Amino acid sequence: MQLTKSQTDNSDGFYGRENDMKVEDKLQMLREQMRKRGLAAYIVPTEDFHNSEYVGDYFKAREYLSGFTGSAGTLLVCRDSAALWTDGRYFLQADQQLSDVPIDLMKSGQLGVPTLAEYLEGHLKSGDKVGFDGRTVTRAFVEELDKKLADKQITYYSEEDLADLVWPDRPALSAEPVWELDVEYAGLSREEKLRMVRSKMKEEKADALLVTALDEIAWLLNLRGNDVCNTPVFLAYMLLAEDKAVLCVQARILSREIEEKLKSAGVCVRPYDEIEELVGRLQTGQRIWADGRRVNYRLLQAIPEGVLQLDKPSPMEGMKAVKTPEEMAHLRSAHVKDGVAVTRFIRFLKTHVEKEKITEMSAAGVLEGFRKEMEGYLGPSFDPIIAYGPHGAIVHYAATPETDVEMQPKSLCLADTGGHYKEGTTDVTRTIVLGELTEEEKRDYTLVLKGHLRLGAARFLQGVCGQNLDCLAREPLWENGLDYNHGTGHGVGYLLSVHEGPQNIRWRMNKEIACAPLEEGMVISNEPGLYVTGRFGIRHENLVLCRKGEENEYGQFMYLEPLTMVPFDKDAIEVSLLNEQELEWLNAYHRKVYKTLAPWLTQEEQDWLREATSVLK
Amino acid sequence: MQLTKSQTDNSDGFYGRENDMKVEDKLQMLREQMRKRGLAAYIVPTEDFHNSEYVGDYFKAREYLSGFTGSAGTLLVCRDSAALWTDGRYFLQADQQLSDVPIDLMKSGQLGVPTLAEYLEGHLKSGDKVGFDGRTVTRAFVEELDKKLADKQITYYSEEDLADLVWPDRPALSAEPVWELDVEYAGLSREEKLRMVRSKMKEEKADALLVTALDEIAWLLNLRGNDVCNTPVFLAYMLLAEDKAVLCVQARILSREIEEKLKSAGVCVRPYDEIEELVGRLQTGQRIWADGRRVNYRLLQAIPEGVLQLDKPSPMEGMKAVKTPEEMAHLRSAHVKDGVAVTRFIRFLKTHVEKEKITEMSAAGVLEGFRKEMEGYLGPSFDPIIAYGPHGAIVHYAATPETDVEMQPKSLCLADTGGHYKEGTTDVTRTIVLGELTEEEKRDYTLVLKGHLRLGAARFLQGVCGQNLDCLAREPLWENGLDYNHGTGHGVGYLLSVHEGPQNIRWRMNKEIACAPLEEGMVISNEPGLYVTGRFGIRHENLVLCRKGEENEYGQFMYLEPLTMVPFDKDAIEVSLLNEQELEWLNAYHRKVYKTLAPWLTQEEQDWLREATSVLK
Repeated sequence: MQLTKSQTDNSDGFYGRENDMKVEDKLQMLREQMRKRGLAAYIVPTEDFHNSEYVGDYFKAREYLSGFTGSAGTLLVCRDSAALWTDGRYFLQADQQLSDVPIDLMKSGQLGVPTLAEYLEGHLKSGDKVGFDGRTVTRAFVEELDKKLADKQITYYSEEDLADLVWPDRPALSAEPVWELDVEYAGLSREEKLRMVRSKMKEEKADALLVTALDEIAWLLNLRGNDVCNTPVFLAYMLLAEDKAVLCVQARILSREIEEKLKSAGVCVRPYDEIEELVGRLQTGQRIWADGRRVNYRLLQAIPEGVLQLDKPSPMEGMKAVKTPEEMAHLRSAHVKDGVAVTRFIRFLKTHVEKEKITEMSAAGVLEGFRKEMEGYLGPSFDPIIAYGPHGAIVHYAATPETDVEMQPKSLCLADTGGHYKEGTTDVTRTIVLGELTEEEKRDYTLVLKGHLRLGAARFLQGVCGQNLDCLAREPLWENGLDYNHGTGHGVGYLLSVHEGPQNIRWRMNKEIACAPLEEGMVISNEPGLYVTGRFGIRHENLVLCRKGEENEYGQFMYLEPLTMVPFDKDAIEVSLLNEQELEWLNAYHRKVYKTLAPWLTQEEQDWLREATSVLK
Repeated sequence: MQLTKSQTDNSDGFYGRENDMKVEDKLQMLREQMRKRGLAAYIVPTEDFHNSEYVGDYFKAREYLSGFTGSAGTLLVCRDSAALWTDGRYFLQADQQLSDVPIDLMKSGQLGVPTLAEYLEGHLKSGDKVGFDGRTVTRAFVEELDKKLADKQITYYSEEDLADLVWPDRPALSAEPVWELDVEYAGLSREEKLRMVRSKMKEEKADALLVTALDEIAWLLNLRGNDVCNTPVFLAYMLLAEDKAVLCVQARILSREIEEKLKSAGVCVRPYDEIEELVGRLQTGQRIWADGRRVNYRLLQAIPEGVLQLDKPSPMEGMKAVKTPEEMAHLRSAHVKDGVAVTRFIRFLKTHVEKEKITEMSAAGVLEGFRKEMEGYLGPSFDPIIAYGPHGAIVHYAATPETDVEMQPKSLCLADTGGHYKEGTTDVTRTIVLGELTEEEKRDYTLVLKGHLRLGAARFLQGVCGQNLDCLAREPLWENGLDYNHGTGHGVGYLLSVHEGPQNIRWRMNKEIACAPLEEGMVISNEPGLYVTGRFGIRHENLVLCRKGEENEYGQFMYLEPLTMVPFDKDAIEVSLLNEQELEWLNAYHRKVYKTLAPWLTQEEQDWLREATSVLK
């Protein structure tokens, strides 16, 4: 799936969740609290305390207060106005959900629409006080405000979460039980990982390392949880030193057994909220390693004067991206299981669309059913995108009762879905032919496939980054004056987040986005697409494993091993547009898919797959 | 040609230039001067005061003192030892030239070979004094020494050029007359360019801009000169302020007429050496824009305490890289002239190699003769690389009487040459078939051609950098486990340096190398290659002009217009390795070459070219 803030994950899956109280009244209650504290404005973002891509229900204060359920948005409440900023994916939805509430919709990036900072600049008086929960914003966010409000002597009030005071039925902070990922799956014990991280700390002369990224903590300790939608992690902080390690978590989420194991690994457990105090106890002259992009504002504020901050990406970002041989082996079997489920789903769609009523949402249910049949399946790695016809052109489409449509025996269905298995995380997109296609649909399907195949077949020297390779996937589209407005590839975690760095495949040279060489063991997606608004969308996505190939006098060559094992729908391929090499790549992949999946399929399914993967000439 | 320090440019073109004095004696004289000043070591680099790629004879002190004539090398003279560092291109030559002199050859980059800083660390005592001419090194160089010598309390003596005291017959500092490039060629008047630069200074709040790069001064003032080998520039410094501009040049190089024109443009002329004094007069609190990568150490030292240095690339780097419509138009005609000369040369080689004795050096003379026949030709833009057979595998080969070989009617001749015309600068490489080829030669020639054609045909979105496109040229080689160890493309100046930034086509993400988007009007080379040591070398190089193409809902598309108009030798093409698209690209280019050059050729030459560019199937 695409590497941007994810689509909505409102668990009850429909717009306008019922609330007893009207939005007006909620805002009034909030303003009352603001008045008591002398706040001219209060900001409610959509973040947890860990800068997670997805957030648990506890953190959906912006959704509760505004009624807007999209996954991305920031609410600003002033004395006598309120506004909500969201991006292009949600303009339509926000228009509907905010239509009859006293909140102005700010369409981010639209011409003439002020940023939140610009809006504040216009609405604040000199000396005003602005509030927000310091745990839900980054320092970058505050610095952005500073820039705009410099000459207004604005002060910030970041100690309190006012939403909490006006949200009676707020869901509790998730505190699901933590479970252990056996070293047999992880490949490295937590002791070994702690050693690796500490040696990096030594290199950087860091006395302490502050870890707030939930996937890093889960990776480091070989633990998993269920506090965040679509991501098997648990709410926690860690403060790591040469001689001790402290894990801050909520009460009772760790079994005695796990707590014992942590202890024997030198990790002591403290309450979740104690992290600020621990950070505050650092000594003058000490160096703390804290990634300014990820650690929340309040924690950075808690670092005492005189303690030096080493502001660079956590050493674990690169470590967990390079999968161990054990993880690689397990990933292959996870993808066999996922391949069986998705292949069954494709066959089901193509063979049943004429016989019975299938909607986008019911189809998603069918696929989830097939995945659940697989041993070791734990749940989706992101909200499924099952987009029929014109919906396929909406890159981050998520079907809702209002938008759900019945599929017809024509056009294309874009299915971008993934799952978490004990053996790893999957993410696959196929564009499925349900019947008659237009020439344009066939041409575009084939052009995107050319790019996918070329990138997938790339051989390159060690040291090459995604930025070097992106154009291999785009070239066939660029040649024809076409493009897709998203990255070509994102890293994928091992039973962690479906989006992880540092590697990526994009062409823009962007200071925010790292240029990380593709190393043996990294998993990355290969997903070019094409989107024709109002008509159809196409995306072909495999996950690939970066591998070492031949080493010779020119250097160490690398190649990409496909992990995803699902056929591409041949019914949409305009063969005349593929050259011999591309045909050979496709046929070789399909041979491998058949050989890999057949043993796990019924005779009927095998026959169908044999045909679906038969040689194209 | 390749974007690295250029090959030797010793004008008399042979090794071991005669010197009355023995190297031993020269070093003794230098040591005498060192002793007088209490210097433990003295460093003689190969640089002029402007960090130019090529240097005039005045600056060849290292060559004079050591007898090593390569273009890259640094001499270090200690109390009782001396060493010279050079790179792989010159190991052979340096071995010969230093064989019987008391100077140790340090092969840079070889395992176990210390860097100059490391060598000094081993040879210096605490408190020692190290000398060098501060005008011939960068701050980066000195900082490198500092790092290694930190704990030795070393001091530097950078005020004096000791070589000057021991080099009786030193050539005078070149002071050739400056001439004007009409605005008809430049497209922009110096007044307009001064305005552009000053508006950039305003943006950066810079009170002054220190310009030491000779090509920037020549570009800014629409003046050219002849003080530096292969580059029509003149020795000068500029200090630019909002309200005044000072040009520091040697006496009598400007005609009264030019001086008048400069005056009326607000540029006053001062002596070349006065620049240090001018910089020293800056006021506390002022901001001076000075590119730390280019401005020499002594000038940076001259900036008074309390003056803030804005250390970033000069604004002119990007300005001169984007050619004006007038420059683009003239460039096309320069390349027609160059194309005629090079095409004649190719025909001459192929048709005469069996009939008469042709050596690498005599061939270079023939090509220079053809170029001289062209109106507006001013001279070579770099030293020609005419490399026959195994010599082709030496990327920066320059034939000398010792290496010069007679060409045989077999194998390949790599010819990488270029010229300066009033209408612009050219740089072209063709690999010419002189007779029988091996299968390997044909395969490699064709694989390199595939990469060249694919990059040349690239369509891409505005904003794309060379780093994004490099792999298009390498993919056919990487697929086969092959590579070339140099960049794919370098920017080219307009009647300035044949190598200029900021654009380039390379894959390594290197902090030293900018990622500059390819903008309309930039000229860049497309020159993949392949080098088989001891056997042959292949390189195919065109200069291309970056152009705006279609603009649509996906953005502004760009393409590369070929400027170079010279046929590729079809005799080496293994057609079966080219796909239809590549064949079409090649045939279309050859059609254009014939159409463009034919009007300027004799009937005989036309007939030959028609055959040489006939359609391949």
